[in-house]
Amino acid sequence: MKALVFDQTLRLVRDQSVPVRKPGESLIRVSYAGICNTDLEISRGYMSYRGVLGHEFVGIVEQTDDSNLSGKRVVGEINLACGQCSFCLAGMRTHCPNRTVLGIQNHPGAMADYLVLPNENLHEVPPNVEDEEAVFCEPLAAAFEILEQVSVRPGRQVVVLGDGKLGLLVAQVLKTTGAAVRLIGHSPEKITLARRLNIEADTETAGNLSVVPNSIDIAVDCTGSSGGLPAALRLVKPRGTIVLKTTIAAQYQIDLAPVVINEIMIVGSRCGPFKPALKALSERTVQVKELISAVYSFDDACTAFARAGKRGTLKILLRM
Amino acid sequence: MKALVFDQTLRLVRDQSVPVRKPGESLIRVSYAGICNTDLEISRGYMSYRGVLGHEFVGIVEQTDDSNLSGKRVVGEINLACGQCSFCLAGMRTHCPNRTVLGIQNHPGAMADYLVLPNENLHEVPPNVEDEEAVFCEPLAAAFEILEQVSVRPGRQVVVLGDGKLGLLVAQVLKTTGAAVRLIGHSPEKITLARRLNIEADTETAGNLSVVPNSIDIAVDCTGSSGGLPAALRLVKPRGTIVLKTTIAAQYQIDLAPVVINEIMIVGSRCGPFKPALKALSERTVQVKELISAVYSFDDACTAFARAGKRGTLKILLRM
Repeated sequence: MKALVFDQTLRLVRDQSVPVRKPGESLIRVSYAGICNTDLEISRGYMSYRGVLGHEFVGIVEQTDDSNLSGKRVVGEINLACGQCSFCLAGMRTHCPNRTVLGIQNHPGAMADYLVLPNENLHEVPPNVEDEEAVFCEPLAAAFEILEQVSVRPGRQVVVLGDGKLGLLVAQVLKTTGAAVRLIGHSPEKITLARRLNIEADTETAGNLSVVPNSIDIAVDCTGSSGGLPAALRLVKPRGTIVLKTTIAAQYQIDLAPVVINEIMIVGSRCGPFKPALKALSERTVQVKELISAVYSFDDACTAFARAGKRGTLKILLRM
Repeated sequence: MKALVFDQTLRLVRDQSVPVRKPGESLIRVSYAGICNTDLEISRGYMSYRGVLGHEFVGIVEQTDDSNLSGKRVVGEINLACGQCSFCLAGMRTHCPNRTVLGIQNHPGAMADYLVLPNENLHEVPPNVEDEEAVFCEPLAAAFEILEQVSVRPGRQVVVLGDGKLGLLVAQVLKTTGAAVRLIGHSPEKITLARRLNIEADTETAGNLSVVPNSIDIAVDCTGSSGGLPAALRLVKPRGTIVLKTTIAAQYQIDLAPVVINEIMIVGSRCGPFKPALKALSERTVQVKELISAVYSFDDACTAFARAGKRGTLKILLRM
């Protein structure tokens, strides 16, 4: 089969062997895959991953031992948990220390004609959700993770820092709660897009945030830069909450005294639940097609990666 | 009256005027004051405070318009709130943006023959609590603040980092919940003291913590050093909690990727509730007299400060 492989270099391989399904797993023919910032970072050496890239996909179940899944159009959770450790038994499968992760850690990814995932990781896509929407389910689920961790509700003042793909998803998800959500970004184009998505949005001008300091209940850092957390610390109220949604490659150089003095809560947030993400796609409470910058044929995957790495690009999809 | 004043230098002043009580306030004759690390830092320029130092005290109400307080032995909460802002109205008086703070911010402190505080800040000391114990109420309340913020309960694995005064109080307070508490410190003497207080305790050897990484539910950083938070990040489980109880003067240089990947919660913690602290002192569930390194006559306050600043010293008290 064809597969996009990272092994010191990124290349489209045409004779990759089709992954073999074990009992309890399904073989899925991939229809679309999405390029995520994590994929870009892996292709620069992050996680030391070698193999087939990709963890955002939608596809059709071709082989399975679960008759309910056979032939179904599915998306899939990316963490393959052991099911037996204390974390798995406590329902924290995304934190299983023995996990492998689709296209990120010891499990071949979704940028290929076929992938294998455990049946329990798969979710059928509602008929009214298009393939180009369903492929957003994984990052959208990550946005919904915030609602599992923090009480976001009407009356809350929320700021999302960062106008990239994740920031635009997070702002939409948080807005579904009825909270007052404002997105702060750099790019006039993306601010315009955010407003089109019905999100109140402003550009940050030279570190001069257009938000009153210490006025915000919840700030979500989706900047992927070391400036996000200090900005969030300036914005949140005493006893406010900061959600760290993106990692940065470098170390922070940061004064954390305000965390203690103002009793701020900082919470890290990673993978999230697929069910509410699929529901939001089906009920159109979140718009994702506006976030697609381009769709490339899988044969042009390397070109697509180059495009995805360019500043200002939103989601790049690969069509298999 | 006599007062210990910081004004570029630290000096015992003998002709300080007695503070004037306003309606709703009480004039208190101070019996004992405690020297806190914050006092040491102020005497080195922190907070730019100038005036009478001190915020840990026990004393007798000499003038008041509250007949229930007259002549009573009291301790007092240190934040003087405006009572009218949104934080005060929400019950968050310790975060009132208009607050002054006893001996720390725009309000003369407790290292004097007399101080003034609002009646509502005062708590009568139970008869079976000695003066030398009651003076610990303020830092003990700060330790109890953790229980207001984090669910500490039997079965939880808790580590307290730092064997100073605060660490020894925090470990005792957390242990009252039934959680498994372990204190990690540097000083063999303090580890011995912690064990005498019935706290499981170990020395850290060259950054080699005697605790399995990623095994701890809650880590409390009482180190006052930049090494505390990285150590806590190594120790806590995925979805674990880190409580920052001390500030550091310098900036952190730190990798926060584990916060995101492991969905760690970091929460800052400052002043706390006096009622459970007084109850713990009265019911002897927390031992504080063991933490007294020395009691100095107020006339020797400058010598006492020098002693308090020496490595390994625990609590220094001033007797007025």
